[in-house]
Amino acid sequence: MTKHDPDLSLIFQALSDPTRRAMLAQLGRGAVPVSELARPTGLALPTVMRHLSVLEDAALIMTVKTGRTRMCSARPETLAATADWLADQRAQWEARTDRLEAYVATLMKETKA
Amino acid sequence: MTKHDPDLSLIFQALSDPTRRAMLAQLGRGAVPVSELARPTGLALPTVMRHLSVLEDAALIMTVKTGRTRMCSARPETLAATADWLADQRAQWEARTDRLEAYVATLMKETKA
Repeated sequence: MTKHDPDLSLIFQALSDPTRRAMLAQLGRGAVPVSELARPTGLALPTVMRHLSVLEDAALIMTVKTGRTRMCSARPETLAATADWLADQRAQWEARTDRLEAYVATLMKETKA
Repeated sequence: MTKHDPDLSLIFQALSDPTRRAMLAQLGRGAVPVSELARPTGLALPTVMRHLSVLEDAALIMTVKTGRTRMCSARPETLAATADWLADQRAQWEARTDRLEAYVATLMKETKA
């Protein structure tokens, strides 16, 4: 577990939807009101709010309501923790020399021998 | 899209399950037979096969049947493409200075003024 102790199941579930990934990409341009996030999706507001709720539960975004406007913002620290997990996996995988290819190659050599 | 053109929805869906993440971590130790992947999960073989199928559809693993043994192996290139997507998002997010904190700070200043 990292210091941020992210809930990877919630995070990856949130990232598994293309609409939510597009919303995250849009937040790369800065904090925006919900209405602005909703516009390019063409979705009804309740649907947009459900997507935002999934992203907020996963700590990928945060929202603050000021007056009648709800502003959304990215939480880069969660993406950082997720990237750390992926990097750990990659490091382990790539350090291995006995990949399946090597295993199959050995098998084929054995079959020929 | 990257050169690998990974299906991020399938990949993140596959990664959203803790059993599947544990299987991937185990594959960091190299190619292993299905039976060995199944043992620590304590799950029935059909359930294990379903998890492996989700991982294989997402191109996170590959399996090869040799005789009566099905060997599983990680596909690091898919994890690499996924990490690239995350890195792109992070770079965009972290380049922004107008985060929600800054927005809120401005709002508070305006309220005081």
